Amino acid sequence: MFRAMSYSQGFLSLIDQRALPHKELWIKSRCLEDVAKAIEDMVVRGAPAIGCAAAFGIACQVHADAASTPDLKLCSYQETWNQYLTRMAATRPTAVNLFYAIKHMRDLWSSQSMDRPLNQFALDVESKALALEADDLKTCQAIGSHGLEFWKGQKKARVLTHCNTGSLATAGYGTALGVIRSLHKAGRLEMVLVDETRPYLQGARLTAFELEQDGIPYTLISDNMAAYAMQKSMVDFVVVGADRIAANGDTANKIGTYNLAVLCQYHNIPFAVAAPKATIDVHCPDGARIPVEQRPSKELLEVQGVAIAPTGSQVWNPSFDVTPAHLISAIITEETVCRGPYAF
Amino acid sequence: MFRAMSYSQGFLSLIDQRALPHKELWIKSRCLEDVAKAIEDMVVRGAPAIGCAAAFGIACQVHADAASTPDLKLCSYQETWNQYLTRMAATRPTAVNLFYAIKHMRDLWSSQSMDRPLNQFALDVESKALALEADDLKTCQAIGSHGLEFWKGQKKARVLTHCNTGSLATAGYGTALGVIRSLHKAGRLEMVLVDETRPYLQGARLTAFELEQDGIPYTLISDNMAAYAMQKSMVDFVVVGADRIAANGDTANKIGTYNLAVLCQYHNIPFAVAAPKATIDVHCPDGARIPVEQRPSKELLEVQGVAIAPTGSQVWNPSFDVTPAHLISAIITEETVCRGPYAF
Repeated sequence: MFRAMSYSQGFLSLIDQRALPHKELWIKSRCLEDVAKAIEDMVVRGAPAIGCAAAFGIACQVHADAASTPDLKLCSYQETWNQYLTRMAATRPTAVNLFYAIKHMRDLWSSQSMDRPLNQFALDVESKALALEADDLKTCQAIGSHGLEFWKGQKKARVLTHCNTGSLATAGYGTALGVIRSLHKAGRLEMVLVDETRPYLQGARLTAFELEQDGIPYTLISDNMAAYAMQKSMVDFVVVGADRIAANGDTANKIGTYNLAVLCQYHNIPFAVAAPKATIDVHCPDGARIPVEQRPSKELLEVQGVAIAPTGSQVWNPSFDVTPAHLISAIITEETVCRGPYAF
Repeated sequence: MFRAMSYSQGFLSLIDQRALPHKELWIKSRCLEDVAKAIEDMVVRGAPAIGCAAAFGIACQVHADAASTPDLKLCSYQETWNQYLTRMAATRPTAVNLFYAIKHMRDLWSSQSMDRPLNQFALDVESKALALEADDLKTCQAIGSHGLEFWKGQKKARVLTHCNTGSLATAGYGTALGVIRSLHKAGRLEMVLVDETRPYLQGARLTAFELEQDGIPYTLISDNMAAYAMQKSMVDFVVVGADRIAANGDTANKIGTYNLAVLCQYHNIPFAVAAPKATIDVHCPDGARIPVEQRPSKELLEVQGVAIAPTGSQVWNPSFDVTPAHLISAIITEETVCRGPYAF
C-alpha cells in the first residue's frame, strides 16, 4: 500500500500526486509555508490526507523554530503560533479535516503552561501530528469493516467510485477505497468501475494506480459513462468519500459526486458515502453553508500541461459539489453504518 | 463559419478535427480508402459530416477510376462499385447518416443504364454528393429556425450542450449548435454551457472553437459539472444532436447524452434532440437495436498523446449511449418540433 506522506524529525516527505502515476517525485518540506503551498497546489489532496499534512506542516515549523530558539517560553510564541494556524487554515476551504487537525493543535496549545520552553512543546506537537495520522489509518480500516456490513449482497459486488479516496487521500487504506479494499480482501468484490474524475483525473491517475498496485480488478471509464454503465446493469452500488458532511447529512465531495447520486436514484442503485466521523461538521446545519472552492481555469484548459481548449475560454471550475442527504443511502463511518434521515 | 470539408474535382479536403483548436491541418484525399480511414480515425466526425464525407469519398474514387478508364461501361463496374459501398459502410456503425448517404448512392446506381460510360456516371456521383452537402446545410438552418419555436421562454436562454454538433459536425451551421446559433442571432441567448465531452473532448476542442470564432458567449465545464450547474439553476434547457433515432424516439448520441437526459428529468429541465430527419432510422424499432461502437482504450488512456492513467489499465469506452424516448422533451428536425410519444 502506497503512502502519501512520511514525517520524521521536522521533515515531511510528500509524494507529488500531480505527477503520479507516471513519475514518483517526493517533495520534502521543513517549514509550514512549504506544506501550505503543497496543499494549495494539490501535491497532496484528499480530505483526511490534507488534515494529516497540515498537522505535520505545523510540527515541521515548530520543530525548526525550536531548533533556533529552544528555550523560548510559549508566552512569547503566542502570536507566531496563531499566525501559523491562520495561514494553514487558509489553504483550502472545503475539506473539514483541515480545520479538525488545526483544532486539535489549538486544543494542544490551550492545555500548555505558558512558561514551557518551545523545544518541549515541539515534541508534543510532533506526537499529536503522529497520533492524528495513526488515528486516521485506524479509522479507515474500521470504515472498511463497516463497508462489509453495508454491502450484504450475496453476489460479488461491482462497485463504482469517484475521485481518489485511497491510501493517497488518507493516512492509509482509504475511506471509500477502504470499503473496496475490505470487500476485495473478503472475496466479495468482482470489479471496480473507476470514474476518471475530471478535471484533475484523480480516478485515472491515482485510484487506478492504487488498484493496480494492490491487484484489485478495475475498469476505467470517463465520468459521463457512469449513467450508461448503470443503464446496462453494470453497477451494484456506488461509494464515494466526503470532504465535509453537514449536520443534516448533506455532503460536499469532489465535483461529479452529486451527478452520481442523481443517477443512482434514477436507477435505484444504493449510493454510499464513506468518511471518518471527523468529516461531519456538526456546526454546519446543511449543505448550503458549505463553502465550495473554485479552482483555476487552467486545471480545466490543460491536461498535464497540454492545452485542450481555446486559450482564454471562460471556465466554470468548482472543485466540489453538494449532494443532498435524501439521495444518500448510507454514511459509513468508523463507528457504524448510518441511514437517513441523518441528524448528527 | 468554419467548414469541415471542401470538395473539388475528385479531391476532398478535410480539416483534421483531432488537431483542432490548436492546429489547422487540412488532409487531402483523392480515393475512397483515404476518406474511409479519415472517418475511422475521426479526422472527420459528427453524424451528418460523416454522411457528407462518405458521399465525397465515393465521388473521389469514381472520379479517379473514370480518369483512368473513362469509357468503361457500368455493367463492368458493378462489382467494384459494390465493394466501395461495402468498404465505406464498414467505417463506423452507429451514425445512420453514413448509411443514408450510401443508400442515396445505391439509388443513383439503380437509376443508371448499364451501358453508360464511367466518366458520365462520375459526374452524376459528384453532383449527388454536392447535393447531399447542400441539403444538409439547408436542413441545419431549418433546424435552427425550429429551435426558436422550441424555446419560447421570455428571458435569454442559458443552454447546455454536449459534444460538437456545429459546422464541423455537419455540412455547416450545425444541428444542436444550429439551434444555439439561431437563438444567438435572434438575441435570445445568454450563455452556452459547453460540456468538454470526454474522452475525445469534442466540446472543449471543437464546440468552444466554433463559438469563439462566432463570438457566441460560452463557458466550458467538465461533463461531471452539469449536474451541479443544474442544481444551481444555471441551465434553462439542454440541446444535443443525434447519431441515430429509432422509430420510437430512442436516441443514440455521444456518450454522456443519456447522463444529461436523466439529470434533466430530475431537475425538471427540458431536454431536446436536434437532428435532420435523415437521422431517424424507421427500420430500427427501438434503441436496443442500435449498434453502439466501442472505441480503442487508447482514446481514454491518453489525452493528445499524453498518458493519464496506468499503462495497460482495463477500459470501457463506448462511443455512444442510448437515451430512452420518454426522457426526450422534443426532437427538433428541419420540418417540425416533435413531442413524444414518438412514432416515426
